[in-house]
Amino acid sequence: MLKLPGLIDPHVHLREPGQTHKEDWDSGTSAALAGGVTVLLAMPNTRPPIFDAATLNLALAAAKAKARCDYAQFLGAGPGNAEWGRHKALPLRAAGLKMYLDSTFGELRLDDMTLWQQHFQTWPRDLPIVAHSESRSMAAVILMAAIYDRPVHIAHISLKEEVLLIKAAKEKGIKVTCEVCPHHLFLTKDDIPPSPLHPSPNGRGDGGEGRLSVRPRLATKEDVDVLWANLDVIDCFATDHAPHTLAEKDGENPPPGFPGVETMLPLLFTAVSDGRLTIDQIIEKSVINPRKIFSLPKQPETWVEVDENARYELHAADLHSRCGWTPFEGWQVRGRVRRVTLRGREAFKDGRALVKPGYGRNVRE
Amino acid sequence: MLKLPGLIDPHVHLREPGQTHKEDWDSGTSAALAGGVTVLLAMPNTRPPIFDAATLNLALAAAKAKARCDYAQFLGAGPGNAEWGRHKALPLRAAGLKMYLDSTFGELRLDDMTLWQQHFQTWPRDLPIVAHSESRSMAAVILMAAIYDRPVHIAHISLKEEVLLIKAAKEKGIKVTCEVCPHHLFLTKDDIPPSPLHPSPNGRGDGGEGRLSVRPRLATKEDVDVLWANLDVIDCFATDHAPHTLAEKDGENPPPGFPGVETMLPLLFTAVSDGRLTIDQIIEKSVINPRKIFSLPKQPETWVEVDENARYELHAADLHSRCGWTPFEGWQVRGRVRRVTLRGREAFKDGRALVKPGYGRNVRE
Repeated sequence: MLKLPGLIDPHVHLREPGQTHKEDWDSGTSAALAGGVTVLLAMPNTRPPIFDAATLNLALAAAKAKARCDYAQFLGAGPGNAEWGRHKALPLRAAGLKMYLDSTFGELRLDDMTLWQQHFQTWPRDLPIVAHSESRSMAAVILMAAIYDRPVHIAHISLKEEVLLIKAAKEKGIKVTCEVCPHHLFLTKDDIPPSPLHPSPNGRGDGGEGRLSVRPRLATKEDVDVLWANLDVIDCFATDHAPHTLAEKDGENPPPGFPGVETMLPLLFTAVSDGRLTIDQIIEKSVINPRKIFSLPKQPETWVEVDENARYELHAADLHSRCGWTPFEGWQVRGRVRRVTLRGREAFKDGRALVKPGYGRNVRE
Repeated sequence: MLKLPGLIDPHVHLREPGQTHKEDWDSGTSAALAGGVTVLLAMPNTRPPIFDAATLNLALAAAKAKARCDYAQFLGAGPGNAEWGRHKALPLRAAGLKMYLDSTFGELRLDDMTLWQQHFQTWPRDLPIVAHSESRSMAAVILMAAIYDRPVHIAHISLKEEVLLIKAAKEKGIKVTCEVCPHHLFLTKDDIPPSPLHPSPNGRGDGGEGRLSVRPRLATKEDVDVLWANLDVIDCFATDHAPHTLAEKDGENPPPGFPGVETMLPLLFTAVSDGRLTIDQIIEKSVINPRKIFSLPKQPETWVEVDENARYELHAADLHSRCGWTPFEGWQVRGRVRRVTLRGREAFKDGRALVKPGYGRNVRE
């Protein structure tokens, strides 16, 4: 039995407030514990979005009542809240500032780069900024980090051009970090099955629609290969756990996103078993680096026991997310979380969360 | 009669080789002289595009035979020619490297940012790079300038977010310069008339189609106002003279672009008359700065005589471009080019080019 530090997932959507039929702070944090995750950072594109004191209080009240693992909550950058200097205490209460700069699920998006500049100028320099920014938008936000000489963390990179540009920017000394999601390491656009509901001109879904719709889209095999070849450029693993129900995913207007917080650890351990990754890299990218990038406290008496030799199939029926499916259904994997100890308490064991809703702590308090 | 140095237009499309029904080196350079322009830099998106020694020779042979004013010819950045280190003499023979990073007229375009990186790494650091790069693409190419610590010149900026980001990048010390076109200073998207051929959902052409189609598109009044308010950030005036025939512009698939090399000077003098601009700014942005940015030689015994008080209407019938129209038809303007003296010869007088085709010199030789 291998003993790991509790993992940190810096990119999780919990859907509360507003869409608890997909997930809530209870089901989502139970799923996190099942995945060996003891701290998660929750994204702000809920309904309503989390973008000021009132909405932050709403999310944190739900979290306080229901969370089973530790957490922090992001604030979202909007067109109307770019003057953080007026709200000095607020940024300190958040996981960081999340900027949505490309199309995704929810209402938060900033199209005008002058608004990006305002957020970069007013958000405190020592607190995290995370950008959903693909391709040229990513390059643009890295330019802002260079101009304003402050760090920026790029969410869920997926493309060869992204990882190679981040590499060059890091070599130049620009303060940029990044994360990659398991689905962008283990799936390609060729995995997207033909969609009878949403046929595309080339005869199959193109990532824009259907069950395998996700943002950023699944990429080419070349992109995936270049990500693996440049793991040293990638600071963190993050799941972008984005639960939607199967009815929604298979319906007329499928929302983008996959669940993932429970399946990351076995996928990564499978890569270890295949010789593509080391345990040290998992600890580096799921514990050490995210703790540093997001200024997270160490969790005392916290660890995850993993049966690294366990072989089994992933099935949605065994998972804790409310959404009820996984894009990795039926995959043969290695590495099973047997037990999670969180701040001295047995929090998860053999498939069941043992701590009560509300045991989780806000790491920003 | 006001005596100015010969103007430099760093952004001109001459359509030769390949589309001489729109313009050629004779008609285009005659138009340039009529506009007080004594050096122009020709863009490479001809047919074929100019991107290697053979195609550069093709353009320069036409120029040598036909040009009436001085010139240099850009090379285009393509997916297959990013290894300039192998062609050491070639970059020195060109005006610079033109990178098409957003949609426009012609075949040259680079979608993959890894190709941009290759061009930035292999094009000589002391020779110009010009980017057609709008909005986030512009930010991305400025990032490359920062990473590779070399200058980049941004073509035809049109947006508030562009000029404000360039301002911030300059303040940070990043080596970026930029140009603005008269049509982005004197026209807005509201000037686009309803198009019976190409109705748009809002009941009028949206800049994507029709006679006023141009790339970058005509912008909002706010964008235009912010450009005027930030003239100190803008290094050069450039026309992006992009002739297409009226039949093409009014046809089914109107190509983007306006003629402009003849109408810039009177438009700018009209702004002087209106108190929005000074003669010194014209000289700075049409002579001093482009000469420095593009390392152009001084032209001895070269000047332009302008009747700054002349008031008249612009009419395509009076212009020299082969395309036969102007977006400023009927505009009341000030400032008429009476005579151009180029390297000691009377090159243009009272509406007629007096030097023969072939008088123009390649300033890179």
